[in-house]
Amino acid sequence: MATFSSLTLLPLPIIIVVFLTVLSSSSPPSFALHSLNFPSLKRSPRFLGKFPHTIKTQPPKNNQQQQQYRYETRYFRQHLDHFGFSDLPSFSQRYLINTEHWLGPDRRGPIFLYCGNEGDIEWFAVNTGFVWEIAPRFGAMVVFPEHRYYGESMPFGSREVAYKNATTLAYLTAEQALADFAVLITDLKRNLSAQACPVVLFGGSYGGMLASWMRLKYPHIAIGALASSAPILQFEDIVPSATFYDIVSNDFRRESTSCFITIKESWDALVSEGLKENGLAQLSKTFHMCQELKSVEDLVDWLESAYSYLAMVDYPYPSDFMMPLPGHPIREVCQKIDNCPDGTSILERIFEGVSIYYNYTGEANCFQLDDDPHGVDGWNWQACTEMIMPMSSSRDKSMFRSYDYNYSFTKEWCWENFRVIPRERWITTEFGGHDIKTTLKLFGSNIIFSNGLLDPWSGGSVLQNISENIVALVTEEGAHHIDLRAATPTDPDWLIEQREIEIKLIEGWINSYYEQKKSIFSM
Amino acid sequence: MATFSSLTLLPLPIIIVVFLTVLSSSSPPSFALHSLNFPSLKRSPRFLGKFPHTIKTQPPKNNQQQQQYRYETRYFRQHLDHFGFSDLPSFSQRYLINTEHWLGPDRRGPIFLYCGNEGDIEWFAVNTGFVWEIAPRFGAMVVFPEHRYYGESMPFGSREVAYKNATTLAYLTAEQALADFAVLITDLKRNLSAQACPVVLFGGSYGGMLASWMRLKYPHIAIGALASSAPILQFEDIVPSATFYDIVSNDFRRESTSCFITIKESWDALVSEGLKENGLAQLSKTFHMCQELKSVEDLVDWLESAYSYLAMVDYPYPSDFMMPLPGHPIREVCQKIDNCPDGTSILERIFEGVSIYYNYTGEANCFQLDDDPHGVDGWNWQACTEMIMPMSSSRDKSMFRSYDYNYSFTKEWCWENFRVIPRERWITTEFGGHDIKTTLKLFGSNIIFSNGLLDPWSGGSVLQNISENIVALVTEEGAHHIDLRAATPTDPDWLIEQREIEIKLIEGWINSYYEQKKSIFSM
Repeated sequence: MATFSSLTLLPLPIIIVVFLTVLSSSSPPSFALHSLNFPSLKRSPRFLGKFPHTIKTQPPKNNQQQQQYRYETRYFRQHLDHFGFSDLPSFSQRYLINTEHWLGPDRRGPIFLYCGNEGDIEWFAVNTGFVWEIAPRFGAMVVFPEHRYYGESMPFGSREVAYKNATTLAYLTAEQALADFAVLITDLKRNLSAQACPVVLFGGSYGGMLASWMRLKYPHIAIGALASSAPILQFEDIVPSATFYDIVSNDFRRESTSCFITIKESWDALVSEGLKENGLAQLSKTFHMCQELKSVEDLVDWLESAYSYLAMVDYPYPSDFMMPLPGHPIREVCQKIDNCPDGTSILERIFEGVSIYYNYTGEANCFQLDDDPHGVDGWNWQACTEMIMPMSSSRDKSMFRSYDYNYSFTKEWCWENFRVIPRERWITTEFGGHDIKTTLKLFGSNIIFSNGLLDPWSGGSVLQNISENIVALVTEEGAHHIDLRAATPTDPDWLIEQREIEIKLIEGWINSYYEQKKSIFSM
Repeated sequence: MATFSSLTLLPLPIIIVVFLTVLSSSSPPSFALHSLNFPSLKRSPRFLGKFPHTIKTQPPKNNQQQQQYRYETRYFRQHLDHFGFSDLPSFSQRYLINTEHWLGPDRRGPIFLYCGNEGDIEWFAVNTGFVWEIAPRFGAMVVFPEHRYYGESMPFGSREVAYKNATTLAYLTAEQALADFAVLITDLKRNLSAQACPVVLFGGSYGGMLASWMRLKYPHIAIGALASSAPILQFEDIVPSATFYDIVSNDFRRESTSCFITIKESWDALVSEGLKENGLAQLSKTFHMCQELKSVEDLVDWLESAYSYLAMVDYPYPSDFMMPLPGHPIREVCQKIDNCPDGTSILERIFEGVSIYYNYTGEANCFQLDDDPHGVDGWNWQACTEMIMPMSSSRDKSMFRSYDYNYSFTKEWCWENFRVIPRERWITTEFGGHDIKTTLKLFGSNIIFSNGLLDPWSGGSVLQNISENIVALVTEEGAHHIDLRAATPTDPDWLIEQREIEIKLIEGWINSYYEQKKSIFSM
């Protein structure tokens, strides 16, 4: 019936990984591994799964959710460059807003602001149930501003022009996006006479990074931030570059050592097979490709993408994506790999396993690889400018092929594809990261860094409490920003508890803000 | 002999004031008052005294100073736009550096960083004796980076091109300047293996604003800031717009009520005189102008500039500028005004008074007004883009003509002169300012806001302690960032004490940073 296309492509030289910012009906993420085993390949990497540019939001299946996700769509005119005064066209930023539970300005009702990240904001809105679910309890207004250059918030009038080249893409940066949020919320509050209402930030993945950075950079705008699965330390040498793939690998090994070993050994098997006469044809057949593979690397990428993505969404309950997955999907994959009848070849085992990811419904007869090597999307640009996250794959701990990160490959690829030179050290200069404990201990407050240790992005996040009010909530069994998702009847206790702690901390921030205001007014 | 030219011009519609950032051999500041008495004037305002583009630093007269002000001049390549990725030329930022007292990286020697402001950095260096004087005591390195678009730190290869139009001036913003500092210091520390060395920021006037903003925006870069005479609240409606001119006026009234009244009454006398036949010729004669005045407004501006400037530099000891002044110069001015022989006309009294300011040495035979109505300098641009500081003159408290601030006049002038639209609310959105007590109480640490109450800029600064380590040091008899100047044998006790407190606070920051590092390393 349907064919599923992998959006991932193998890069030649760069290991690139992926945010799965909100788990939804999105494309799978892309990431890539370079292997010295494939020296002849000359391919361009894709940094991130392509997110749909416009999302037709589906009504959530859960009735309760459907009620909570009412919002009005508005637009706000923004400067393209907040930090300079060139004569540039302004653009229209979309935002979603719901005020029905808001206590209003007189009672200083809180404002919950989700920091929109690299995708359509409606898609984030419907997949961030937590914010909608707790807003009534706080009497909070809910605002979801869209990140510039995504969804409908497109400079230069159209995506086509905005994404044309480095000159038009130039203003797609995290700092400009944060300034958009600051300007929007300041204007919104002024219009509502709500200047004294406390703002609380939320965000997941890159959105979580934005939320924590926003708290650091704009403490006068928001009183606190819940930054879920925010790998703000995944830069330069702050954390080991192998951490991402090591965690993915651990997620498989914890389910089954033999599964881990099978995958680890499969790469050589793939290469051997590919080198045979008619090897690509045979591989295409084994992996049910709709078209014959053009290279082994395509297949490697297709598999590696699936493993990394599975690690991110390794939730304890079924999740409903474009390709639906069962609960504990890695367990399912490994059971498939391990439980094949004796005599099943290693590649057939791999195919059986990965079919859980690409074809859980069983509706696909064959698989289609995305074969646009120059597909350009917003995250690709961001990963070629500011978001330089070194990624390696270790020889021992990883089930992936080993690879040592090399900045010059990134640089070369970015120049070839965007005519832009990445700024390798800019993010840590602008937002910090090195010695973050000292910095935040001496300066800063009210941030929750929440992470699930199954999530490969957790390795680049803050996993230790820093002070009384900069806290790390770490769950052993959690995956990528599961806490931001809507509650489900099958939520495990640890998740329910985690959310309760988050709610209490946020309550604490708001109360202490009210106390401060009171003490200042009585001065 | 010499003629002295006033650099101030009367604007039609805008009240604009002036930073006197470092008291030195600079031009006097310009500011301007619009008066309904002069409805026919159509003049362009100048926002700030023109600072020399290149300063030939004079060896300080004090031998001690001379020893302390040794530095090496270096250059650092900066991105023109830190927050975007357009293909723009980089530029060379000048900085001065002295490491001779530095304890070095192993002993985590501190780094004292002066946030260069709107002028030549050598000029700031020689006029910020405090930093040089205390550095040996701390074993600190001293770094004075120059602000982009000033001095030698000129984008586009030359001042001529950099100042050509709004397109080339676009990147002259405070945010870009702060990012310059952050990138420079990060690179410098990395090159010296000095990542663990604490950075302390210093700045006066606009430089003080930069220092406090830098502490807020880049807490990971610097552990504390001494922000002297930093009017970070002089935006929007945070402080009353009349505060600047009210303070200038008070400075005169405290010396002599009759002096205050004479000045207040002089404006009408000027106008009456100007309206007479040959009035301008007569006024030119009374005020010893080298050329005949073209309008009464020119003269008004010339006088108002002097009064405002006098209030800023109303120091208790003689200061040595391009036009040297006695100690307590306002007292001297008022004595002149008050002590003229009976029968001296009001305008003659005013002339006698203002001669203290324009001709203290007595070398000038006549005075020359600067008559370039379109003189464009860096601060003019900044005042037309980000630094929108509302200034009014109150009817009762002020000795100046009354004027109500009107943003649309600013907007119009800026459009006419630069083809740029000011962003009236941007600074408070980016850096905060409203409700600053709550913000800083909940977030932030280690800032000293020092102010002298004679300084008209003190009205827009932070004058109350905010928390244990965000403190306001206020001196009744202080003027514009006197604490940053070199110690002199005639320093009053309150100034000596103020500097001692500052030193103790800075020591406290550094010690608590070392403690934090220790506790984290022992974790």
